[in-house]
Parts: sequence; structure tokens; C-alpha cells
Amino acid sequence: MVAQLSSSVSRGRELLRRLAEILPAEALISDREGMRPYECDGLTAYRRLPLCVVLPDTVEQVRAVLRLCRELETVVVTRGAGTGLSGGALPHAEGVLLGLSRLNRILELDVRARLARVQPGVSNLALSEAAAPHGLFYAPDPSSQVICSIGGNVAENSGGVHCLKYGLTVHNIQALKLLDCDGETLELGRGALDQAGYDLLALLCGSEGMLGVIVEITVRLLPRPACSRVLLAGFGHVGDAARAVADVIGAGIIPAGLEMMDQGCIQAVEAYMQAGYPTEAAALLLCEIDGEEEEVESGLQHVADIFRKRRATSLRTARDAAESARMWAGRKAAFPAVGRLAPDYYCLDGTIPRHRLGAVLERIAELSRLYDLRVVNVFHAGDGNLHPLVLYDNQRPGELQRVEELGKRILELCVAEGGTVTGEHGVGVEKLDPMCSQFSPVELAQLHAVKQAFDPAGRLNPGKAVPLLRRCVELGGMHVHGGRVPFPELERL
Amino acid sequence: MVAQLSSSVSRGRELLRRLAEILPAEALISDREGMRPYECDGLTAYRRLPLCVVLPDTVEQVRAVLRLCRELETVVVTRGAGTGLSGGALPHAEGVLLGLSRLNRILELDVRARLARVQPGVSNLALSEAAAPHGLFYAPDPSSQVICSIGGNVAENSGGVHCLKYGLTVHNIQALKLLDCDGETLELGRGALDQAGYDLLALLCGSEGMLGVIVEITVRLLPRPACSRVLLAGFGHVGDAARAVADVIGAGIIPAGLEMMDQGCIQAVEAYMQAGYPTEAAALLLCEIDGEEEEVESGLQHVADIFRKRRATSLRTARDAAESARMWAGRKAAFPAVGRLAPDYYCLDGTIPRHRLGAVLERIAELSRLYDLRVVNVFHAGDGNLHPLVLYDNQRPGELQRVEELGKRILELCVAEGGTVTGEHGVGVEKLDPMCSQFSPVELAQLHAVKQAFDPAGRLNPGKAVPLLRRCVELGGMHVHGGRVPFPELERL
Repeated sequence: MVAQLSSSVSRGRELLRRLAEILPAEALISDREGMRPYECDGLTAYRRLPLCVVLPDTVEQVRAVLRLCRELETVVVTRGAGTGLSGGALPHAEGVLLGLSRLNRILELDVRARLARVQPGVSNLALSEAAAPHGLFYAPDPSSQVICSIGGNVAENSGGVHCLKYGLTVHNIQALKLLDCDGETLELGRGALDQAGYDLLALLCGSEGMLGVIVEITVRLLPRPACSRVLLAGFGHVGDAARAVADVIGAGIIPAGLEMMDQGCIQAVEAYMQAGYPTEAAALLLCEIDGEEEEVESGLQHVADIFRKRRATSLRTARDAAESARMWAGRKAAFPAVGRLAPDYYCLDGTIPRHRLGAVLERIAELSRLYDLRVVNVFHAGDGNLHPLVLYDNQRPGELQRVEELGKRILELCVAEGGTVTGEHGVGVEKLDPMCSQFSPVELAQLHAVKQAFDPAGRLNPGKAVPLLRRCVELGGMHVHGGRVPFPELERL
Repeated sequence: MVAQLSSSVSRGRELLRRLAEILPAEALISDREGMRPYECDGLTAYRRLPLCVVLPDTVEQVRAVLRLCRELETVVVTRGAGTGLSGGALPHAEGVLLGLSRLNRILELDVRARLARVQPGVSNLALSEAAAPHGLFYAPDPSSQVICSIGGNVAENSGGVHCLKYGLTVHNIQALKLLDCDGETLELGRGALDQAGYDLLALLCGSEGMLGVIVEITVRLLPRPACSRVLLAGFGHVGDAARAVADVIGAGIIPAGLEMMDQGCIQAVEAYMQAGYPTEAAALLLCEIDGEEEEVESGLQHVADIFRKRRATSLRTARDAAESARMWAGRKAAFPAVGRLAPDYYCLDGTIPRHRLGAVLERIAELSRLYDLRVVNVFHAGDGNLHPLVLYDNQRPGELQRVEELGKRILELCVAEGGTVTGEHGVGVEKLDPMCSQFSPVELAQLHAVKQAFDPAGRLNPGKAVPLLRRCVELGGMHVHGGRVPFPELERL
């Protein structure tokens, strides 16, 4: 044991010595205080210090780090801006934390082809700002867009309020350059819709740093719509609002955004910033339509008709861009607003079929009472992506565990309703257990096999995204198709 | 050798005997004449008889076939309607050809959620016909849509004239159920945009039957646009038409379709069916805009302005749906029309960046002269997807080889221009050699590793889609990043 420990210590020293040869001094951090900002990502309940943090500013430095880690059999956890909400960038205690924030150059902006080639550390907002003067924008817009990086967006397949119409990150990228676990370059995607061979481009998107290190991204830019306006409606019953959402989609309307809040969230927002939301409403819908002026006009009228039929208690259409922005401002402030209701909150992320919205909200309310924890709901209703926020106080002993248990129950509920444990935040370390309820042993074994095809030694971000079969069996919550667990796979992993 | 042969014969007998136990008599074909219709797909230059053909009509029969093939170590090649153009469904001489045409039920049509759950043998057209009464349609519409199957569309990630706006098959499916090489069920995709774990749904799409057998597909249906009209323009120079295409996309217009033909194709179509195309034009563009009436109107005007600036020599906007349909009819008849120009033609499929259209067409003309083979061009210009048709006479000795060589040169040209060897027809057996010029050894090794993660014994459709590294090295056309071939991978495969 002592021998093992001292060998691990000496290996750590060897690693630091060799990294110092590869990297400039300011790109290598190994003191506890210096590493503190990297001990967690947006899922702050999980914290861990890595062996060291490296912050390369060239692709060749990234390659050299990966080669060294291969030689020294060291784990590598890649990190973007650290805004991820599922712990995908949680460090490994015996591994290198590879931060890509300094790879932050926009390499090319091809206005004619509507493409941009960027390094992974470019922030989502910086990309949109660079595109704006040309009348273009980059569609995925997670709440963290001011700081989150495009590389992190690819790793987690990020969405945002506009993904209903414009898709997730995977739908907005055209090519990736990545380094594999040995530091070799792979170029995926070549300026075409179809991928020759297997679609590794889509496979990498959302793979949470477990299949390779992405060092360059070619994204698609879209022309900014001529016009875009918001309709805000209050409802007396959550069920009515949920049915209104299904009706809008069923009518063939594709809003740029279709967001819902429950009363707890509406009131928190109003108390925080007076957005003009109807505080007496049980639920609120925000519907944005974009396109040509006439299209927006007729779309909004159509949506208003649907909302009226579903007994909307209030209805307001923004007259212009400024009023639309004010309506959105409340939605965008929902998280900090809810943050004032309790010392801590925990943001969940799951997806359900749209038509189950009403039933799922009722069941969440029941679970909230059962666990004696207040839950406030805000979500991308159009694509069934829920973000229940569980309010708690981390100072109270045992409360976080109760919150996590409630969170797992809610995600299992999403799965039981035919949905999935992630909408746009990824699995990370947070949702490993709920993954057991979504996937069968055969499916999990297949996911592990894919990981092995890219990283046979398991050096890239081990222990994230896909739970071990053993763990799922221990949990007893394993999803089994046709009542049969194929034990050979269980033995293997 | 004799012993080996007789063991193979006796294994074949054993296979047939056991298959007869699993399948009804009419679902098993093993006589040469009965198997003849299955000896090739749409790439008729390649033909081969399998050991036998099986046509199961239940998923459990498919599973039983896969289990038996695992036990007897037999290759399985899956086939849809056999309309594929790259030989993806070419049988294996010692394998079972698994035809899924009898799995042809539409299991569910959920109008409200705009989803359909279908078996793989359902034809593309049958799905659209089932959706039409509800004002919905399934977007991918390959030329073969009357007979091609949804399962085959998934296997080849098919496109069609509308994929510029509505995407390829991968962008229009929501979930897949597949059987893996052991006959185990995997369910991929669960009614959400994001995939938990790695995106195996996208990975399977376009995997040409090499990773699993797809037995159920959930597709997204779209609301039929209120209005849709076509603009037809002739140009005196191919370069002008190519620049007009780039201008349309650059202006932020997203046409439902944007097709181009060269003079050879225009004249063939006119001779065949008098579509009213301008036969004196060097190139023709067909641009379809869909959406709300006003949107279509303003879109068509904008496109017409662009075409005029690019010196269009004729310009005609369809007044209504009927005239639009007549304009499309010529495009849809392009293949049979060209078929009358020579005893045989060979349809290529590659993609290039849009702005290289003009240069690539010139180079194709040069290659056409060099190989003394006439080439007629028709393509999905909007997404840079070329379909050069090489005219030839298969009766002339050596002519097919010359055609194939020219085809490879054209696909290598696509790669050299930053494009890819496939737009929507897949790789199959046809494009194995050109794949060598597109992918580096590391990339090919990664593709093989993914295959192995799904099918370690290589029983599913071996020898398709991804060339062996050895073969690429022998060809000498291997693409090498940074001038270095990483030999370890070459040794391994």
C-alpha cells in the first residue's frame, strides 16, 4: 500500500517534470490554491482537485500533453469554460485537467459559405458577436452563452431556448478536428450533409470528452431572421398551458422558442425584476415566432387563437423587438430569481414527450411533497425539455442527499414516460444512476464498446456519461427489455 | 482445399436445414433462379448470388436468423428494396441475404406528435401517402421514393431534392430499434433531440447494415407547407449558374430545392418529355421556395433578382402548383431521359463546397475528354451534391473499367476540393477506393474500430463502406495528414 502510494507520488512528480518541459510556466498549475477554480464545473456539489491543471495555447501543446499522458498512463479530463451542469468536467484525482480556454481564436469566418472555423475555447457569445455584423448568428444559445465555450457546447451537445426551431449543437456544426487518446489528428465532416463511413461527427458531439479532444470546430451560421416577436400568455391551470403547447406543435407551427414557467417561477421572477408577468397565473407561456414580417404576424395570430381556445387568462403580444426583449429578460433571469428563494437550488434536466407535460408536472408536485422539498419549474416546453429547480439549504445535514434522491426520481419519471435523462446538460457524473433506468444492459455494453473503440485504455475522462453495468445491477434499477438480463455482458464489464 | 470446400458445402446445407426450421417455406429461397432478383442492388455492374435469401415477416424471425448465423458463423447482408446505388446490398457468396421487404407495416401514426413508427420495409412513398391526409409529409424524398424503403433510407442516410432545407434521413428520424449481430435488441433515441450517452442513433444512420439490423424506425413528419412554387432559369455559362447558387445561399435564402442541370441534361430531358426547358442554355437552375404565400412570393422575387444579376438568359416563375409540378417533372425524368442517350450510364455521387461548383464542372469536362466518355451533369446544387452521369456501352470490352476509373477520378476531385465521396448514395462497394483519398489511416482505423465495437466477428455486411487500410496503401492514394503514415495502425489491420 505504502509502496503503491509512493510509486503514484513519484509518477506524479515525473508527470509534472515532463509537463514543465512541454509547456510554458504559466500554462501549468499544480498548487492547491491555483487549482481551486478548476475543482468543479457548474455542478458545484461535486468537487475534486486534479493532479495538475494544464492550459495549453496551441494544438501542438495539446498533442504533446496527450502523448505524455499516454506514455505515463495518466488520465486526462478536458474542460471548456466549466459551465457544464452535470459534472462532465469534474477532475480526476490522479489525472491532468486539460483546460482549453486559451485556444480561443476564431480562425475563419466565411460569410459567403455561412461557416466559421473556431478553436474550442471561443465563447458562444464571441462567435455570435463576430457573426452579427454580417447579419448572421450561431443558433445554439445556452443560458451560459456569455462565458460557455463552443468546445464545451460540442462536448455536451448544448441547446438553448431556440433549439426547438434551430436544433442542438449537433445540428449546427459541420466539421470537427480532434486529437485521439494517442494525440493523433482526426478530421470529421467535410462540408457536406452526409458523412462518408460512419457518422463520427455526430458521435463525437455530446461525448463529454470521452472519445477525443476537440481542437477545432466548423460551425454553421444562420441568417438573422428579418423579424422576431414574442407572445406572452398566462393560464389558470398548468394542464391548459401544457395542452396549448401540444396544440401549437400539432398545428404545424415551429416557434423559434416556446417556454413555460409555473407559478413559483413566475412569482420569483416578478419579485426579482418586474418583468410584467401575470403573478396570479398558474403557468406562463412565452412563444417567439421569427421570420419575415407577415409570417411572424400570421404565426402570432395563430398561436394567440390556440392559447385563447386553451383558456389563456391573459395574452400580450410584443409590439416590437424592445418589448420582446423585455419579455425574454424575465425568462433569462429565472435562475438567479429562483436563486433568491432559498440558499441553494439544484437544476434538473430531462425530456419527456410533449403530450405528457401536464401529467409529469402533477407527479413532480407529488414528489415535491413526498420529499418535503420545494420544486419550481421552468422549461423548454416546445421540445419537452424540463428544468425543475429543487430548492434546498446545503447547510442542513442530509438535505443535499434528499435533493439528489428526488432528482433521480424525477429523471426516472421522465424515462418511464418515454423520455430521456438529458435534454441538453449531458450525463456527466450527475446522471449516471438514472442512465441505468433508461438503458438496457445490452445498450450500455454497446456504449462501453464504442468508448473502447476510441480509447481502449480508458484514459479520457473515465467514469463519466455511461454507468458501469455492475453499478446499475447493484442499484437494482436496471432497465431490461423483455425481462431478461443478458449476463455475459455483465460479466465482461 | 477439397476438404475445405466440402466443409463449406456441408455448412451451407446445415444452414439451409436450420433456416427451414425457423422460417415458413415461402420465406426461404435457395435456388439460383429464385435468388436472381437479389443478386444486385441499383449498382447493377456488381452482381453476386448469396448462399440463400431469407424474407422474414416478423422481427422474431429476423432475430432467429441472426442467432443462427452467429452459431454457424455465417455472414448476413441486409437488403431493403434494393434501390441503393453504391452496392451496399450486394450479396456475399457465402452469406445469407436478409431481405426486410415483408416487414412493411406502419405501426403507428401519431398526428399530434407528428411521428410515425414504421417497419423497415415500408416504402418511402407509402409513408408519405399515409401522412398526406393529415397535412403532413416525410421530408427525405430520394428519386427512388416510389419503391425504396425507409429501412434502406436509414442504412444509406438518403437525401433527395428537398434535403437542402429539410435535411437527410438522419435529420428526420427520432428513434430506431435494431437487432445487433447477436440478435439482441437495442433501442436508440427516445423522443428527444439529445441522445443520452453517445449518439448511436446518428451513428447507425448511414451505416449500411454493418452495425446492426434495423427493425423499427420512428420518423418525424413535417406539416406540409401552405404554398410552394418553382422558378426556372437558363444561363449562358455554367459558371454564372454556379455563382447564382452561391449567391442565393449567401443571401440567407433557404430554398426547399435548388437543382442544376448542364446542357447535355437539359437537351436529353427536352428530347424525352418536352418539359419546356431552354435547350440553348448552358445550364439550368430550378429553385423551389415553400412556406406561407407571402414568404414564397418575396423569396421568389429575391431569387429572381439574384439570377438576373448573374446574367440569367431566361427566367420563368410557376404561377401555381400545377406549373411547378411540370417544371419538376423534367428534373425527375432526368435519369430515364439520359438513359436514352447511350446503352448504359453510370451515376456518380459526390459533394463539393458550393463555391467550387464552376471549377469542378470544368475539370469534369476535361476528364470527360481525357477518358473519351460523355458526362452529363445533374445535381442538387444547393448543397453541392453532384450527380455526374457517365454515358457508356457495357457491350464494348473494357469500357466499364474506363468508366469506373473516370468515376474514381471525379470522386477524388471532390475530395481534393474539400468535399466528400458521398452526397446521399453511400459508399457500399462502389466508393471503397475513393474513401482512401478522403480518410487518413488513423481515421480509417477509427472507423474499423467502431465496426468492431458493434460486430467483433465481422458478420454483418463485411467488406462494405470502409476500405481496408492494406487496400488503401496498395492503391498508393492514401490521404496522409502532415505527411506521416502512422504505421502501427497499418500493421494492425
